[in-house]
Order: sequence, then C-alpha cells, then structure tokens
Amino acid sequence: MALTDPDRLFPTDPAVRDRARALYDSVRDLPIISPHGHCDPRWFAENARFPNPAELFVVPDHYVFRMLVSQGVPLADLGVPRTDGGPIETDPRQIWRRFAERFHLFRATPSEMWLNHSFAHVFGLTAALSAETADATYDRIEAQLAEDAYRPRALFERFGIEVLATTEGALDDLRWHRMIRDSGWAGRVVTTYRPDAVVDPEFEGFARNVEMLGALTGEDTTTWAGYLNAHRTRRAFFKDHGATASDHGHPTARTENLSAAEAGALFDRVLTGEATADEADAFRGQMLTEMAKMSLEDGLTLQIHAGSWRNHSAQVFAAHGRDKGFDIPMRTDYVAALKPLLDAVGMEPDLTVILFTLDETAYGRELAPMAGAYPALRLGPPWWFFDSYEGIMRFRESVTETAGFYNTVGFNDDTRAFCSIPARHDVSRRTDCAYLATLVATGRLNERAAFEIAHDLTYRLAKEAYGL
Amino acid sequence: MALTDPDRLFPTDPAVRDRARALYDSVRDLPIISPHGHCDPRWFAENARFPNPAELFVVPDHYVFRMLVSQGVPLADLGVPRTDGGPIETDPRQIWRRFAERFHLFRATPSEMWLNHSFAHVFGLTAALSAETADATYDRIEAQLAEDAYRPRALFERFGIEVLATTEGALDDLRWHRMIRDSGWAGRVVTTYRPDAVVDPEFEGFARNVEMLGALTGEDTTTWAGYLNAHRTRRAFFKDHGATASDHGHPTARTENLSAAEAGALFDRVLTGEATADEADAFRGQMLTEMAKMSLEDGLTLQIHAGSWRNHSAQVFAAHGRDKGFDIPMRTDYVAALKPLLDAVGMEPDLTVILFTLDETAYGRELAPMAGAYPALRLGPPWWFFDSYEGIMRFRESVTETAGFYNTVGFNDDTRAFCSIPARHDVSRRTDCAYLATLVATGRLNERAAFEIAHDLTYRLAKEAYGL
Amino acid sequence: MALTDPDRLFPTDPAVRDRARALYDSVRDLPIISPHGHCDPRWFAENARFPNPAELFVVPDHYVFRMLVSQGVPLADLGVPRTDGGPIETDPRQIWRRFAERFHLFRATPSEMWLNHSFAHVFGLTAALSAETADATYDRIEAQLAEDAYRPRALFERFGIEVLATTEGALDDLRWHRMIRDSGWAGRVVTTYRPDAVVDPEFEGFARNVEMLGALTGEDTTTWAGYLNAHRTRRAFFKDHGATASDHGHPTARTENLSAAEAGALFDRVLTGEATADEADAFRGQMLTEMAKMSLEDGLTLQIHAGSWRNHSAQVFAAHGRDKGFDIPMRTDYVAALKPLLDAVGMEPDLTVILFTLDETAYGRELAPMAGAYPALRLGPPWWFFDSYEGIMRFRESVTETAGFYNTVGFNDDTRAFCSIPARHDVSRRTDCAYLATLVATGRLNERAAFEIAHDLTYRLAKEAYGL
Repeated sequence: MALTDPDRLFPTDPAVRDRARALYDSVRDLPIISPHGHCDPRWFAENARFPNPAELFVVPDHYVFRMLVSQGVPLADLGVPRTDGGPIETDPRQIWRRFAERFHLFRATPSEMWLNHSFAHVFGLTAALSAETADATYDRIEAQLAEDAYRPRALFERFGIEVLATTEGALDDLRWHRMIRDSGWAGRVVTTYRPDAVVDPEFEGFARNVEMLGALTGEDTTTWAGYLNAHRTRRAFFKDHGATASDHGHPTARTENLSAAEAGALFDRVLTGEATADEADAFRGQMLTEMAKMSLEDGLTLQIHAGSWRNHSAQVFAAHGRDKGFDIPMRTDYVAALKPLLDAVGMEPDLTVILFTLDETAYGRELAPMAGAYPALRLGPPWWFFDSYEGIMRFRESVTETAGFYNTVGFNDDTRAFCSIPARHDVSRRTDCAYLATLVATGRLNERAAFEIAHDLTYRLAKEAYGL
Repeated sequence: MALTDPDRLFPTDPAVRDRARALYDSVRDLPIISPHGHCDPRWFAENARFPNPAELFVVPDHYVFRMLVSQGVPLADLGVPRTDGGPIETDPRQIWRRFAERFHLFRATPSEMWLNHSFAHVFGLTAALSAETADATYDRIEAQLAEDAYRPRALFERFGIEVLATTEGALDDLRWHRMIRDSGWAGRVVTTYRPDAVVDPEFEGFARNVEMLGALTGEDTTTWAGYLNAHRTRRAFFKDHGATASDHGHPTARTENLSAAEAGALFDRVLTGEATADEADAFRGQMLTEMAKMSLEDGLTLQIHAGSWRNHSAQVFAAHGRDKGFDIPMRTDYVAALKPLLDAVGMEPDLTVILFTLDETAYGRELAPMAGAYPALRLGPPWWFFDSYEGIMRFRESVTETAGFYNTVGFNDDTRAFCSIPARHDVSRRTDCAYLATLVATGRLNERAAFEIAHDLTYRLAKEAYGL
Repeated sequence: MALTDPDRLFPTDPAVRDRARALYDSVRDLPIISPHGHCDPRWFAENARFPNPAELFVVPDHYVFRMLVSQGVPLADLGVPRTDGGPIETDPRQIWRRFAERFHLFRATPSEMWLNHSFAHVFGLTAALSAETADATYDRIEAQLAEDAYRPRALFERFGIEVLATTEGALDDLRWHRMIRDSGWAGRVVTTYRPDAVVDPEFEGFARNVEMLGALTGEDTTTWAGYLNAHRTRRAFFKDHGATASDHGHPTARTENLSAAEAGALFDRVLTGEATADEADAFRGQMLTEMAKMSLEDGLTLQIHAGSWRNHSAQVFAAHGRDKGFDIPMRTDYVAALKPLLDAVGMEPDLTVILFTLDETAYGRELAPMAGAYPALRLGPPWWFFDSYEGIMRFRESVTETAGFYNTVGFNDDTRAFCSIPARHDVSRRTDCAYLATLVATGRLNERAAFEIAHDLTYRLAKEAYGL
C-alpha cells in the first residue's frame, strides 16, 4: 500500500471525485505562496544541511512530540531541551525509534498525512513507518540529508515555492534575511513584523524590550509618541527586508481605541511593570488599533492570531519552556472585541486585516458576518489544529455562504516544519477542490467558476491579501 | 449552463438523489405558507408596479449590499439613503451595473441561488449576470415590471402563496392590511404584532412611543396595569387584522418573571429614561414573559428572535441608519435566560413559543434539549445567515436526534425580498428532502414516514404552529 | 419493511458501504464492554422477571417520556410517580398505548433506533409500533417477559456482555453486588464509586450524608483528614466489589488545588451548610483533584461528567423530583476549569482521567487539544443527547485529527434501559465503522489499520482505560 493515495481527500462518489480531480489537476502544480509561517531564515541564508531525521521531523515539531507525550513519553526522551539544562536524550536514532514505534498514534491525523507525504515525495520512502522500519528509514533519510539536493535552498526550489514569509520579533536584526538577499540566490524569502515582545506587557522582559526598541531606533521609547515612532521605524526596516505584513498573537481579540492621552497614560502604566492583567490586555488591544492605523500609512497587512492559552501546563513550562505543545484554544469573542478597531478603521477599503481563530464556532456566527460586511476584514484560513481536511471543510462550509470566497485569503502553512510545506499546501488544494466539486455537483456553483475559484484560492487571493 | 440546476441541493449519490427527488416531487407544488416575514403590505394594498430592477433586487436587500460593501463599494453608490440626506447614486441602471460587475462575489452563497432562481423562474432570464449582461438583464426585467403579470398581487398568486404574514410595530395603524381586506382580493396577507418600540427601553423614542400606545388604546400607559392593558388592546386589534403571532427581537434571550409590584417598579424606572442597560434588559425580559402570559389568553404564538448585535458599525449607523447589513450574531445563552419564562408557562400545552437563534452552537446543546422537553417550546427554522443549504442541514443534523421533527415548525422565509420567496421555500424543501432521503438511505427512517414528514415540514407544521 | 435495516448507518456510496460492512462484520460479535452505566444491580442479584412493557420501556426512560411530555402528555399519565404521592396512571397497558400512539414523535431519533432494535432483536417483533399495533405488541412483550429466557441474567448472557459497570453512591452498602458475587453466577457486574452526595455541598442532606460516611467508615468526618480517609476507605470497599473507576457529575468542570489548610477551611465552611454557591463549586472542584490524587494511590479511573443544568423546570422538579428529562446541557469551559487539576496530576502517565461533555463545541477547541497533550487525560465517548449517529460522527470528526484514536476510550452505553444496551453498542460500532470506511476511502487511513482500530474502539480501549 502506497504511503499516499493519489485520490486522497476527494469525495467518495465517483462522479464527484472525477470533478474534484479535474479541479485539482488544474492547480496542483501552481507555485506555493507561503505568506505566513515560522521557518528559520538562517536555513536559506547558510544553506547548511539539516542535521538528522530526528532534528528534522521530531524535536522541533510540537504536533509530533505532544502526541507522543500524551501517551506517556517524557519530552526529555524526545530530545526536547530542559530549561535547567538537565539531561535529555541526545541520540537522534533513539528519538527516531521512540517516534517510529508509536507512529500508529498519528493515524488519521494531519500529522500522519504530512509526514507520509514528506517521506514519500521528499525522501522517496515506500514503507510505512513502524518499529520494524525505524532504522532503515532513519538511515535512508540520513543519507539523503547529506546530499546537496536536500539542502534548504534546493528543497525550496524543488517544492516550487514562489515566496516564503518568515516571522521575526521587532528587535530582530534580520541578518539572515540580509544574508539571503546579498547572496544573489533567487529564492524569495521575506520577513513579517511580529512585535509581541514589545507590545505585550506580560511578555518576559517587556520593559527591557521597549528600551532596546528605543536603542535600535533612536527614539525615546519612554514616551508614547516615541514608542509609536519606534514602531514606525522598525516597520519600515522590516518592509525593507521584504515584509508585507505584521502579525499579532494575543490571548484575546480585544481591541481598544483610546484617545492619545488615555493611551499615553496606559503606556506609562504598563511600562512600570505594575499594570493589572486587564490593563495589559487593554494595552495589547490598543496596540492592535495603532498597528492598523500604521498599516493605513505603510500598507502592511495586519494579521490577528487570537485565542490561544499559551503554555497551559505549569509543569511543562517550568521544565521545558514555551511552545511545547501545551497551547490550548479558548472560546474567543470577536463581536465586542473588535468593535473599537472596526469603528476606527473597519470601513477603510485600502486596509487589510486578516482574522484567524481557534474557536471554530466563531466562523459562521461572528467572523463570516463581519468579513461579509467590513471592507477592511478578511478571513484567514484554518489555523493550527484546524489546518486539516475536516478543519478546512468545516471552514468553507461555515463561512462561504455568508462571506463568499473573496473575503478569504487562500492558504497559510504556518509551519516551522519545512518538509511539510508541500504536503500542507497539497491538503489545502485537495480539500478546496473537494469542496468546490461538491458545490458543482449539487448545483451550487457552475463549473467554469469552480476552476476560477480553485486558482484564486491556491494562488491569487494570497498574493493579493498579503501584497506579495 | 442553466441558471438553476434541476437537481440542485440533492445528495450526490445517484440512488439517494433519486430518493430525494421523489420526496421533493411530492412537495414542490404545495402552497407556500409564509408565517413570518417583512414584506410591505402596501404592495398588496396598492398593487402598484415595482419601480425598477435596482429597487427590486439591490437597494432594499441587506444581503446583497453588505457583500458589495465588504469589497469596497460605498453604500451611497448603491443608492442606500444617507441619514444626512447627502448625495447618493440615483440612477438605478448605474446601481445595477455595480451589482452585476461584482456578481461573482456571491458565488456559492444563498443570495446567488435566490437571485438566479428569481432571474430564471420569475423573469425568464437565461444568461448569468455579469458586467457583460448587466444592461440586457436590466432592460428585460424593467420591461417585465411594467406588465400587469409582474404586479405584487399577480406575483403573489403565481408564487402559490396561501398565506403571507407581514410584521408591523405596535403603533402601526394597519391601514394597508385593512385596504387589502376591503379590496375583495382573495390573497391572504396577515399582520404580526411586533412591539419592540414600546417594549424596549433602549429603542429610540421609547417613552414617547409608550405615550402614543396610551393614546391609541385609551389606556393610562403611565401605569403598569394600563400599559399591559394597552398591549392587550393592540394585540386584539392586530388579531382582528389577521395576526396569529407576536414577534420579539431582543439582543439576548433573557426573561424575567417578577412580581407585579417589582415589574411595576421596573416599568416606572424605565419610563424615566434613566434605566441602566441591565434594567432595560430586565424589562425586555419581563415583557417576554408578559407576552407569553397574554398568549395564553388570546392564543397568539410567541416568536423570540434573539442574539443579534444590531448596527455594529458606528460609522455606518451614523451615515445610513439601521438595518444596513451590519447586524452581527452573538453568542447567546438560552438555558439560564429562558428559565424564568419557562418556570412560569413552559409546561402549558396550549402555548406555543418559537425560538430562533443566530448561535448555531445552541441548537444541539440547549435548544433541542429544551424543545424536546417543554410542551410550550418549538424550534424555529434557521434564521438569517443560516437560511441556506448548509444552515438548514446543520439545523436538522443538530436538532432532530434530540427534539425530533414535531418540535420544529416548518420554514420561514423571513424576507423583505418578495421575489426571493419561492426561491427560499424551494431551498428549504430541497434541503429537507435531501436530509430525509439520507435518513432513509442510512436506515434511520422508513420511506413512508419520509413522505409524511416532507409534507409536514413543508406545510402542516407551519400552519399548526402559527395557527394559520 | 423490517424494523431495522441491515445496512443502517453505513455510508451511502456503494463502495464505501461495502468497506464499512466489512469492518463492522469484524467487530459485530465482539463481547460488550460496558464500563459506565446505570443499570440496577438488583436485577442481576434477584434475577426476577421485568414487570411489564411499560415499566421496561417507558416509565424509567427519560429519553422516552420527555419527548411525550414535549408534545403535551403529562408525566403522571405515563405513570411517573409524583412527589406528593398524588394519583398517576397505574395501568401499564394505558401507558403503553399513549406511548404507541405517539411513536412517530421519535422518528429519526436514537430512541427510535434503540427501541426498534430491542423490539426486533430482543422480542422478535416485526410490526412498527403505532396506535394500531399497541395492544398486540404489548401482549407479545408481556408474554415473553414471563419466560425465563427474558430474565435479567439470561438477557445479560444473550446480549454477550463481558462486563457491566453500575454506578452507586458512596453510602451504598453494595448488597446487590455482593449477592451477585455470592450467587456463583458467572456474569461480571461491577460497581463504580459515585460520591456526589458526600462531595457536593448543594446535594440534599449533604451534612447528614457526610456524617453517615463517618459512621460507615469509622472516620471522624468532621475533620478534613478524616473525611479524606473515609473516601479512601469507601473507595477500597467499592474496589473490593469490582469497582475500577469513580464517577463525578458536576455542573461545571471547575477544579481547584488548594493547600491542605485552605481545603480544610473550605471543608469546615461547607459542612456548616452556609457556604455560598461559589464556595460549594470550589469544594466540588477541590474534591475532583483529591479524587485524582487518590486515583494515583488506588488506581481507580476518574470520570468527569460535567455541564448539565439538572432539573431545569422548577415545576417538574416540584411535582416529580429529579431526573425527569429536564436536564439541559450548558456551555462548559474546560481550559481554565481543569488547569488546577492538570497542574497537580495532569502529567502523570499512570493516571487516567476521562472527560465527558455535553458541549460539543469543546471537542475540537478544548478537549482534543488537551487530551492530545496531557498523558493523564482521555476523551470519553459522546454522552447523553450525543450518543447517536450524528453525535458520534461529529465527535470523531472533531477530535481524531487532534487527539487521534488512542486518546479516546471506546464506547459507554451509560443507560438504565437494559434492553437498549445491545442496540447502543451496535450504533456505536456501525458509526465508528462508517467513519473508518470513509477515512480509508478518502486516503486518510490504510485498510489494515482500519480493522485494527475498529477492534480497539469496540473492545480494547474500553478495557484498558477502565482497567477491566
């Protein structure tokens, strides 16, 4: 049995499946537009080989290690560093074996599909991963990683990536992006402005970060005006390194639109480090509106990724730090939360604010009705846990009737797992084509339009929404 | 390619599709029962021609203009009046062109299906609307609107409407309904009692409205007892003009069941205009229970349409006023909210309270369990954004297992877009038949029962629930 | 038309249906593992005949009588006892007729499928229940109930039940379980520790119950330490009667992890009977964590059934008491609520906490992400209103992509309707196989794995999660 079924994710009715395949065939080879993700720009700057199979597929992938943890494997046994520097597994083959033995845990998950796609289409494997095949698989991948054809730039080209956006903090020096640009390599890798560390009063070292922001920009960031100017300066610096968007990951979608005096007073308060949780939330909310206003000036697209309870397990956070698979979605309100921002700039036709959610109940109830009315709003694709066949299908079924296709923005892979990029875009293309084929087969869309939309969802809308 | 597919919305599996078609054929020609909607009774009273294609299809239809606005078309360019009387587009052909050029925005939305259905089945058009066909389409519709066969009463008859309910405010003089009745025309158009303006302390001019209610009824509406009696009098007046139901559109589903003394004190308070938001909400909640108690006296069915944040955009509300496509659904609780009303009258077998929601998560979690227990409760059909194939299918899939079919009440078109009425009922009949066919095909319903239920959902349940 | 379709609940596409049937054929005859339910152990202890059809199918089944009530049948007319001892229907045939006349109300509900399955496969009936067949059906069932083959133990064996867990309060003397064990009968019936009456300060007679707990165990339950020890003693007593799990039904999923001093003070407070609602909730939350800690000691699996507003109708509760079909699900938070418990014991690989919900929105948003990370967490199957084809399908579609199959625990019938047990397990097996067949047909799962998973979901996972 092949690792990937050529007709995977298509509808089961034979006639509808044929339609879906025809639509998919029309978009399968389009270039990949990846306007939001977390790849490391250093890969493309240095173009060094990837270290080993475990470092490529297990250790950095929270989708993978969280599932192993959920069945009792300690993070340390998977090579995930400890904050106290204590002992962890250092043998990549050992890590790989632990993963391979438990590969059945991923059955019917997107991770399985992404991994099998990578194994088959990037590394040419044919045997299913298991305890039995663990070593042979390891050896095969390891051998290929040593080849030049498996270096980051070669894979980038082979994957057909037209543009890849990474995400950097506001204080980042963007050296890797400069190095890529200066190298003369033709691959287009751009940055994204992600200022959480200087915008979120509850971020570790916030006050110091704001000070560094001042030092970097020559602005007096102890004043509200200077702080805002510093953002303007950094945004321009990021734009100069290709950025076409900013990104904001807040616990809630709260926005505020305070007067300059009120905002300044709130800024003074959060700088003291003594702000309440509510004041911190208000400040983040104010900054979303400030960023939207700056977007009106400089044209950057604004992305809002709200609703994750980060680092939910105190024990895991203490032992291993951030981003270890324990970020849990929360119920998220958008209707009241976004009103201040929308009253300020929601009717601006030249602004693009892209909303992401981890609360699928908001799709049809809140997000589609808002994006189907406010010119500044667009709906981002399913995010994180919902970047999957069922997730994408629920998204389309929930939002299309109210917001149409043209208030959505195509696909984001949003990944730091480089080899999964083609797999993820493939899942998205297939699922969208399955959805479109079903619409045609049920008389809800004409066939010509379906082909046009397939192209738009795969290629055009992402480029337009992100100004790429 | 025809504008409407004869097998639209049926399941894709050929055998199940055949079943769905057979069920649909048994109900497709049944008369239309329209127990809740917003058509203008003046149309049928005066029977004047509809002005032009733009006034018929674009200017009054918030589904249509909101989508155009979401992609940057100003409301004024679509002929939507400004509150300051400022300039707006006055050329209907120009408005029509703007709409036609952007008709692709509606792809796969219910609006597209309703519009195409009207174009094809009411106006005999065959070409898809687009920039190219805009003028020819305009001319064709315009020419037909001049014919007597396209006047309101002729269309009413052609559409096969057995009864159509409109909705009027408590202070309305119902002159158009009287004029219809006095005209000798056989068409049955009834009113519905919608007292928001005299029940909601936050409605513009509430105190003055209550005063007018007193003047109209000869009751002293400065007293709680007089105010309640005035409602009784108006309900009787509406009943005399055919009303079989009242309707209530509140932001929340909150109900209260205060003592007469408490309710009277709350009434005094809200009349002062100084009530808090919570007191205003409590008063609305108390009035739902009062209305339910009056329903026990006079037999009117009580409809509750809760959960919309009206006029969400401050900018659009200031520039263009109410009902401009910026009403956004909110998360809505029913379990705690309805308890006071249900403790008062929920066990009454002769009362019918119909619940509507914009929060689909409540279907299976709250509404179906309550309607599957309380004799007074019934579930209204999918409302507003959810009056669609996916919306209806989700509704049936979420509520049937818990509440069955007989705690639902058939379909509402709930529209002010007259020409869309046959289209909307057709979507409902097709979707219900698709659902029933699937149940039969999966052994969850026997075939004879499916035919009976198809008839019930199309015709009988609406007549019974609304006493029509 | 037969009462049950041999291919019921399978996908409609013929090829996928064949796959589903093949999967189902591989698990249809596996023994029933019933690790959580509400059968009366006395049935198996005494092995007396069931009294009559109405007492078997109508009077004790809240699914059945609530639906009849929702359409205006008074509970008393169905023989449901009144708290004031007032008159109720006592003729079982009369009750049965009222039920039979209204059997159409159950169309397409799980109740209809369970009942028809029992009628056909337990009692050999072939005619659909209706007013016309009411008496003949009654007579046929009544006659069979008099046969030895229809006594509880004979049915238990005929149903192929390998193990059946009942649920008893902490103060129960477990005499029926002892009687079963002492009888030498081979059927395995085990108890479950359900301490709500001594854990929930808002339970009727809480203080007295805690006193009785002390008397039963010889512990001083006026002290926090004695109270905890009394739980330990009772848990051991329940374990000795086969218990492998405890079960907790709280209005919310709130947990607390207070210091011993704080917890002791809270215990003192709730014992006074003067605790606030919030203190009562906090105490229940603290006890969940205490129970989890005791589970680490004694190995009992912990079940949390949260989110039901019990006895929602004040009128029904006053007239007929608890559990009369008026328990309504509520929106339920798990992310904040479970954090204290999870911070305490969530990373323990040897603990099993099974979460159930009545808020389906939590499946994908909260529960699957948590169960896909915390080693101690597992997801219980769809509960109550959602123990149905659509409910199970939504569950699998919402959780599998994030939590996989191996963080779920197989099926619970959770019933007091003994004859429905085979029907419910059959629905679960069919629906899971339909889901698996669809995964295979859409390239998301390989066929060999599907057979393995079908077996796991039917048999292995339940035994493992409950230590049976």
